Amino acid sequence: MPTIQISILEGRTLEQKRQLVKGITEVVVNTCNAKPEKVTIYINEIKKENSAKAGILRSDR
Amino acid sequence: MPTIQISILEGRTLEQKRQLVKGITEVVVNTCNAKPEKVTIYINEIKKENSAKAGILRSDR
Amino acid sequence: MPTIQISILEGRTLEQKRQLVKGITEVVVNTCNAKPEKVTIYINEIKKENSAKAGILRSDR
Amino acid sequence: MPTIQISILEGRTLEQKRQLVKGITEVVVNTCNAKPEKVTIYINEIKKENSAKAGILRSDR
Amino acid sequence: MPTIQISILEGRTLEQKRQLVKGITEVVVNTCNAKPEKVTIYINEIKKENSAKAGILRSDR
Amino acid sequence: MPTIQISILEGRTLEQKRQLVKGITEVVVNTCNAKPEKVTIYINEIKKENSAKAGILRSDR
Repeated sequence: MPTIQISILEGRTLEQKRQLVKGITEVVVNTCNAKPEKVTIYINEIKKENSAKAGILRSDR
Repeated sequence: MPTIQISILEGRTLEQKRQLVKGITEVVVNTCNAKPEKVTIYINEIKKENSAKAGILRSDR
Repeated sequence: MPTIQISILEGRTLEQKRQLVKGITEVVVNTCNAKPEKVTIYINEIKKENSAKAGILRSDR
Repeated sequence: MPTIQISILEGRTLEQKRQLVKGITEVVVNTCNAKPEKVTIYINEIKKENSAKAGILRSDR
Repeated sequence: MPTIQISILEGRTLEQKRQLVKGITEVVVNTCNAKPEKVTIYINEIKKENSAKAGILRSDR
Repeated sequence: MPTIQISILEGRTLEQKRQLVKGITEVVVNTCNAKPEKVTIYINEIKKENSAKAGILRSDR
């Protein structure tokens, strides 16, 4: 705790994920007084055909 | 917002997903006064060996 | 299975929730060949101060 | 209901998953008076590069 | 990691929750070779009017 | 999309939440090339009696 889950379209590079979790952890530590080693993050990569907005799959846009 | 996550066994066709997100978005718009472009849907496809009911994996049934 | 989770701002009436789950279940049954009694829905009501878009809490908009 | 979601690093064997869902279902049935056939479990397998602790991806440790 | 989320109808006693998390942690440790202190559990209590099966709110049954 | 869910013990102030969502949105925008108005965040506040580590409820520690 805290646990953060990020749902994002697939296709981010390893370096982007690296910066993403580093940055988010810093924000959580600084704003919520959490210890860094308590911050767990899961990245949930979503395929375009498994995500929709306004009733239309992203793979159809 | 609203955000809808659907956990479902893998194996639906693209056309089924298309009708699924179209229909759900219409229901949310009609019953909750949400604007269509605010409705986000994620489909979470589950393998049979990663789902269980009554203590038994679906891949074992 | 299928399991659907809906995150939505708090404040919907009981009748809205009733129509919401009825409609979504029908869509899932019709598009995914699921039996109605297999469709589980959770409504996750969110306070405005616990939801943000573009970096701003909805309670601050 | 109850619905249990388990986020765990990928790499468990089928037999481990089998024992995991069997054991968790027994616990839920025994402690919460739930009927076994009402207990649904989803295993969410996570890649090392999609999980982080203390701001560092598990694939970087 | 592992992180377990349990969605369950509200109304369990503190003692039931105590036994629930104790038992589930033991199962995860024994079947997945996880260290106990790595096992995080969240209980997500659901109101009857926020859960539905077969298209009907549990508060309406 | 992206959608971020943060599970955290209850008790953060409004100002902490404000800084939390502002900071996380900036990180996501900067590392993943997402537009700010596409970043949705949900804060999931957890009671101590609904969270456990190492098999023990946080309210019992």
